[in-house]
Amino acid sequence: MNQIPPTMKALVLQDNPEARIELKTNYPTPTLKAGQALIKLKTAALNHRDQWCREGMYPGLRYPSILGSDGCGTVVAVADEADQHWVGKDVLMNPNVNWGDNPAFQSLNYSILGMPTDGTFAEYLALPAHRLHEKPAYLSDEAAAAIPLAALTAYRAVFTKGLAANGSKVLVTGIGGGVAQFAFQLAQAAGAKVYVTSGSDEKLDQMRQAGAAGAVNYKDPQWVKTLIKAEPMGFHTIIDSAGGDAFGELAKMLAQGGTMVVYGTTAGKPSGIHLPRLFFSQASITGSTMGNDQEFVDMLAFMAKHQIQPLVSSVRPLDDIVSAFDEMDQGRQFGKLVIRISE
Amino acid sequence: MNQIPPTMKALVLQDNPEARIELKTNYPTPTLKAGQALIKLKTAALNHRDQWCREGMYPGLRYPSILGSDGCGTVVAVADEADQHWVGKDVLMNPNVNWGDNPAFQSLNYSILGMPTDGTFAEYLALPAHRLHEKPAYLSDEAAAAIPLAALTAYRAVFTKGLAANGSKVLVTGIGGGVAQFAFQLAQAAGAKVYVTSGSDEKLDQMRQAGAAGAVNYKDPQWVKTLIKAEPMGFHTIIDSAGGDAFGELAKMLAQGGTMVVYGTTAGKPSGIHLPRLFFSQASITGSTMGNDQEFVDMLAFMAKHQIQPLVSSVRPLDDIVSAFDEMDQGRQFGKLVIRISE
Repeated sequence: MNQIPPTMKALVLQDNPEARIELKTNYPTPTLKAGQALIKLKTAALNHRDQWCREGMYPGLRYPSILGSDGCGTVVAVADEADQHWVGKDVLMNPNVNWGDNPAFQSLNYSILGMPTDGTFAEYLALPAHRLHEKPAYLSDEAAAAIPLAALTAYRAVFTKGLAANGSKVLVTGIGGGVAQFAFQLAQAAGAKVYVTSGSDEKLDQMRQAGAAGAVNYKDPQWVKTLIKAEPMGFHTIIDSAGGDAFGELAKMLAQGGTMVVYGTTAGKPSGIHLPRLFFSQASITGSTMGNDQEFVDMLAFMAKHQIQPLVSSVRPLDDIVSAFDEMDQGRQFGKLVIRISE
Repeated sequence: MNQIPPTMKALVLQDNPEARIELKTNYPTPTLKAGQALIKLKTAALNHRDQWCREGMYPGLRYPSILGSDGCGTVVAVADEADQHWVGKDVLMNPNVNWGDNPAFQSLNYSILGMPTDGTFAEYLALPAHRLHEKPAYLSDEAAAAIPLAALTAYRAVFTKGLAANGSKVLVTGIGGGVAQFAFQLAQAAGAKVYVTSGSDEKLDQMRQAGAAGAVNYKDPQWVKTLIKAEPMGFHTIIDSAGGDAFGELAKMLAQGGTMVVYGTTAGKPSGIHLPRLFFSQASITGSTMGNDQEFVDMLAFMAKHQIQPLVSSVRPLDDIVSAFDEMDQGRQFGKLVIRISE
């Protein structure tokens, strides 16, 4: 451990209205507690959650905290002899903190890596060794960092909650989002016929090239008719993170026994849910967030089996990380915003 | 078959605005088709669906049709030799017509006994022998007739969809309804702690006596607070048939991983669903209607195992059946409206 410097660069969330996030250059390097591993980070990736923390729009904000839920790095030290085999290995970190014993839902003291516990936007990170997974060999450092939070959320939404399978008709709304992109890739790899929506024709074109069965602009007044015409028997699985006025229209597009999985609410409260349609169709609306530890294992295995390559929008150095937050805020990127921390 | 008269009494839905339902005294007695059994009905029971048909508020109305989904009677003839063992037996009828092969949802040509196919409000009924089940020995003719449609709907809602089990906290809204009453009884028999709501203090008193863990008047402005105070961790299963403005409040009362089952919409479109609460709680809203044929078998076995006695509000002769429709319309009864057809 003698090469580990006492201070490091870290992107810190702080209670300062002038600079709610700041890249500190001499933040204390974490020291190991029992059961922990110390990781020298190579890459990290942003999630919308990071920007929401910056905006003060996330519950339970704690200052100061190092943000960042996703990362890829090398284990440089461990506290316990039993974890020695990790040292020198390239790893991903499961971002769940205290999911708990019930696979159906997280425990009351659950949190996500990167606020309140210190996260991946730093040169070093200490966390329990049981959070470590070997970096998938088929992926670059940049692609690996893009996976954890978004792919875990997508995996639970698509399979555990949405029950998508080979032959399912699946609709993923707002395909510009990180979770939505993984949802598309996972469902497609499972053999589903996957449709997507977006407000951007450019993103829709890209999705057609990526094999989407249909790609519809939700700003087109005909978007509902277009989707109903494409799949008159409805969708078995709809993955939505918007809610709002479109929610009721989506619910009407559910097939008999179908499930709409909702994991976000960027368009506000849903309206217009037609209950008779829901019960005559034996259909469900189910909330989903993140995924349990077994789902993290299963997701990594599924990604590797199907050699799924995460979409990376851009890679920039840690020194420029604040600009990645700004880009996340504008929402124009298509693919993950990746940060290169060390080689 | 020589004692079977050529005509019979039957309550007929007809396309006559002056008398949409009429008790005919010389309606043709059904004749047996291949695979069918002829039942001489002893008792029948109303469901809200019957009154909705009378009001023209049910999809796919067919004239003339004999209404009635629930009944108890004696098999007096069968078309096929293989069904001979049914003759002389007292039976209940599974009201499902063509559920189909998928237990998760009904087929596209599914219907319910009693419009479009002729139902139980008549002296005789012919239907496929595979719809027959032995009348539960522990029940009177009146109590047996009260079971089929409502208890089947409740069984699927409470167990298959609502996942209620021993120890579950369950809330059943609008306990005056027939399905709601069975939902209460089934959940209670399974070992759940069951709360109910109603707009009638009298019905709430009865439910307290019947062992409800809590009974809350939804006209009380404090009803939400009262229920949250009673079960601060929320309900695992909520069974609702109202929707409307209360729906969003109910959704907020779901426990982690909880399920709200909706099988009706007497209060109109739901409002105020708070999606973040839904997804942070990994909670679901699921539609349910009727139940599959296996659930009918399982429901009867469960009822018998726990010796559940259906709530019967009143029994009147077939000649007075129109007054039972009027009472259903007013909705003041507590328990099933039963019709005595023959001894």
